[in-house]
Amino acid sequence: MKISVYIATSLDGFIARKNGDLDWLPGSDGQGDHSEDYGYAKFIETIDMLVMGRNTFEKVLLFGQWPYGDRRCVVLTSRDLTIPENMAAHALARNAQPKELISELEEMGVQRVWLDGGKTIQHFLREGWVDELIITRVPVLIGNGIPLFGHTLNDINLQHIETVSFESGFVQSRYAFVRKPEVN
Amino acid sequence: MKISVYIATSLDGFIARKNGDLDWLPGSDGQGDHSEDYGYAKFIETIDMLVMGRNTFEKVLLFGQWPYGDRRCVVLTSRDLTIPENMAAHALARNAQPKELISELEEMGVQRVWLDGGKTIQHFLREGWVDELIITRVPVLIGNGIPLFGHTLNDINLQHIETVSFESGFVQSRYAFVRKPEVN
Repeated sequence: MKISVYIATSLDGFIARKNGDLDWLPGSDGQGDHSEDYGYAKFIETIDMLVMGRNTFEKVLLFGQWPYGDRRCVVLTSRDLTIPENMAAHALARNAQPKELISELEEMGVQRVWLDGGKTIQHFLREGWVDELIITRVPVLIGNGIPLFGHTLNDINLQHIETVSFESGFVQSRYAFVRKPEVN
Repeated sequence: MKISVYIATSLDGFIARKNGDLDWLPGSDGQGDHSEDYGYAKFIETIDMLVMGRNTFEKVLLFGQWPYGDRRCVVLTSRDLTIPENMAAHALARNAQPKELISELEEMGVQRVWLDGGKTIQHFLREGWVDELIITRVPVLIGNGIPLFGHTLNDINLQHIETVSFESGFVQSRYAFVRKPEVN
């Protein structure tokens, strides 16, 4: 099973403002030119399960409809979470550590996971469970917000795979993680 | 006068560990392959003055000899700073705000400044004095340290000029700042 992070950050490394707002991210309001999707369609095509934290899930709920087609999502939360009825087919809540969750997903036959949300990404990164990081840098400094990266136990070396830049000034880099723990 | 930042950061945005160490930065120990200089020689050629904070200057002093040829350096500090005798020809200390310093440098006929050091860069960025940012991302997460970016008063939009990637996995992006205050 392969676990990917596919995310946009400000140049100073934030994935959202403190309150979760993405207003600094051009196109996040659905306005503007959509001819460039920054590889999203190609990426999502490969994914069969999303894993995200509760805060990210609650942002997704605000979209009003499920934006990921027939892909399901595990919502990681340490508190009780009632999945709204109209989302019950799409999402299941879990209070699990990365290792437990990965075992469960592997048993379910999941092949490729899109991991999303600041705390969730940091937790999986810190424990070495992320295989691939696709980070799209937006040319703006927002000064503070929710950081993509956090504390690590040790230095984590990555392998740079490729970087592409776009007319919009977005720069997308793909990295692979070299070592990965064993699930069992 | 043009003010440039030319700096390497970890993928998580740190320019040094908390204690100033650069051990995570391949080549910082003078070991290894030096055939690739990441545009440094070409960059330094264009510079006629360095401006850095006291902490960065104190790191430079540890090199034992002045690494910037006949280029001089302004050391920004709010405390008394005695420049060592063997560095007196290379460095002058100033306790000045960016605007004052820029006026002084312009009167001296300085054309291109290399701005260095975390706090100094953040201060000049926040006040809008930086023209160009050349940032080289090293493919490692170090978890904490001295961040390149800090608090901003507003969002700061940048223009992406170009990005190049290197065999080593370093990715170098060049950005221009669109608006700049007037000195006078």
